[in-house]
Amino acid sequence: MTIKDVAEHSGVSVSTVSRVLNNHPDVSEAVRSRVMETVRELHYVPNSSARDLVRPQSDAIGLVVRGVGNPFFTGVIRAIEDTIAQAGYTMVLHQINSGEDELRAGAELARSKRLQGLILLGGCFDYTPEQTAALDIPFVCCSYTNSFGSLKKSAYSSVSIDDQAEARRAVELLIQQGHRKIAVLLDSIHDHSISELRYRGYCQALSENGLSLDSELVAETDTFDMAAAYEATRRLLEQKKDFTALFVIADSMAIAAIKALRDGGRRIPEDCSIIAIDGIDVSAYTVPTLTTLIQPQASMGGEAVRILLDMVERGTGNRHVRVDTTLRVGGSVAPLN
Amino acid sequence: MTIKDVAEHSGVSVSTVSRVLNNHPDVSEAVRSRVMETVRELHYVPNSSARDLVRPQSDAIGLVVRGVGNPFFTGVIRAIEDTIAQAGYTMVLHQINSGEDELRAGAELARSKRLQGLILLGGCFDYTPEQTAALDIPFVCCSYTNSFGSLKKSAYSSVSIDDQAEARRAVELLIQQGHRKIAVLLDSIHDHSISELRYRGYCQALSENGLSLDSELVAETDTFDMAAAYEATRRLLEQKKDFTALFVIADSMAIAAIKALRDGGRRIPEDCSIIAIDGIDVSAYTVPTLTTLIQPQASMGGEAVRILLDMVERGTGNRHVRVDTTLRVGGSVAPLN
Repeated sequence: MTIKDVAEHSGVSVSTVSRVLNNHPDVSEAVRSRVMETVRELHYVPNSSARDLVRPQSDAIGLVVRGVGNPFFTGVIRAIEDTIAQAGYTMVLHQINSGEDELRAGAELARSKRLQGLILLGGCFDYTPEQTAALDIPFVCCSYTNSFGSLKKSAYSSVSIDDQAEARRAVELLIQQGHRKIAVLLDSIHDHSISELRYRGYCQALSENGLSLDSELVAETDTFDMAAAYEATRRLLEQKKDFTALFVIADSMAIAAIKALRDGGRRIPEDCSIIAIDGIDVSAYTVPTLTTLIQPQASMGGEAVRILLDMVERGTGNRHVRVDTTLRVGGSVAPLN
Repeated sequence: MTIKDVAEHSGVSVSTVSRVLNNHPDVSEAVRSRVMETVRELHYVPNSSARDLVRPQSDAIGLVVRGVGNPFFTGVIRAIEDTIAQAGYTMVLHQINSGEDELRAGAELARSKRLQGLILLGGCFDYTPEQTAALDIPFVCCSYTNSFGSLKKSAYSSVSIDDQAEARRAVELLIQQGHRKIAVLLDSIHDHSISELRYRGYCQALSENGLSLDSELVAETDTFDMAAAYEATRRLLEQKKDFTALFVIADSMAIAAIKALRDGGRRIPEDCSIIAIDGIDVSAYTVPTLTTLIQPQASMGGEAVRILLDMVERGTGNRHVRVDTTLRVGGSVAPLN
């Protein structure tokens, strides 16, 4: 079944069928109905590439996922794919490791796949205008923003939580339970990224509550890897420095930290309370259930696509959307005895 | 920068540039070098869609993932994407829920995106020739095969473990530790799919070791969901039927089962040993570490693409590849006291 068959059956030219399928205005209503009726009768499915010949532009929206295997992204990717498909576009996915350059990957994808727009899922928080110059299509940063960079707010869009405020909230919850010696497990305090922002929230909560920062209670992993989180927690324990609670910047790292604490003979929450941020499915099945601040994965993904399509289709201005987390009360936080 | 610029700079026609870029034989070596030099000088990147105009076919390979959020698929998808990209093709991803019809999704994707070939990641084991007739492109079943169906072996390709044999091996490992009352947690014993095959392996191991099957020790979930696995394990405990070991057909379900056992007051492995199949990253961080048979995610994904490309490019025959699991000895299995 080709566009030629549709043309023959409806008694019009191939280019007229094309114009109908692509909603061009210069077709009479009578012809339009006749063609669409034939399309339905013949069960004709226009293929995208054929459509590309007629339309000036492709229907491709790129998604670069930075951090392969990050379970937090699973729900976000699904929502992005659904929303892109519902809008009649095609998602082109490219996954890179967290050490790789998402801007370069995005620019290459944009050129080779003629993208209309790009969603970056996970990335650096410190872009400069020079770095993003190669991206000459609209783009949305999903799950992060440009806190440490020098981009004009008008140069891009973003959907993210307020990392510093949410981290502060998590640590406040521990303080409210009487904890004073609170350790933190993070990627790096100087990553100019998510980890540094959440570290600032940790420091802010301590300082606002008259607690001093103890650098020995700051465990850095230099990655979001579970193995590294396990090792960093082991090192924290080996210091024999007393702490009664631990704030971990990501659920997956918290799962590894729970194991390290348990392997080190600590009971949770009796000997150590633990709280995190993310809310991935599997952290509901740790023993005890991880108490965490859940990021709304599905609405973040959907919102990122809606913002991007507004930019692509209507040329409307960019937007920066903040979403809130929801506390999941598990069993990993207890009052200090 | 367009193909016209390249044509002008090299003093040849656009169609000649096209022929060079698409490796047509009817171009002199002198012209070929002149064009390629210009391409390099001008940093021209041919876009895929432009190439589609010249090439008779698209460069799209489809991947339908059935079972969104299945953590076992993460490593497989990454390998598939890498191998497709290295071969110069474009991956078109479509994710569906485990209840949805992957053949229909694949056929629609094949038509709308002009796919050259299709990889189905996760799917039913009981296809009929009528069901696959709509798929008129080469396809590979990745992580499953057609054990319950009526497809000719020559009609498709597959990469999978031997589900029954691996399940038998897992249960044998429990029996070797002295266990006689062994429960099983699975999706369904009649799913004509992965769950039924692994159930057969469980039954085979029992029978070969002179143990009788006790239907009260068979817990069905009707899904691979962690919440359902948790509830099914709770029901198993509520029966007050004695068992000292549990075989779970998937790691993610085993994580939920561990929590249900622990919440029910059972120590692992002292009161109940547990073993599974899959080997996802996070199951290395349960307490205790889950003992499991690891499926080789990366090599399964890479192999699926290589088989498919052989079929697409060289028209060579289909293949069925069996891969082996590797035992990860965790702390969840202990000898029966």
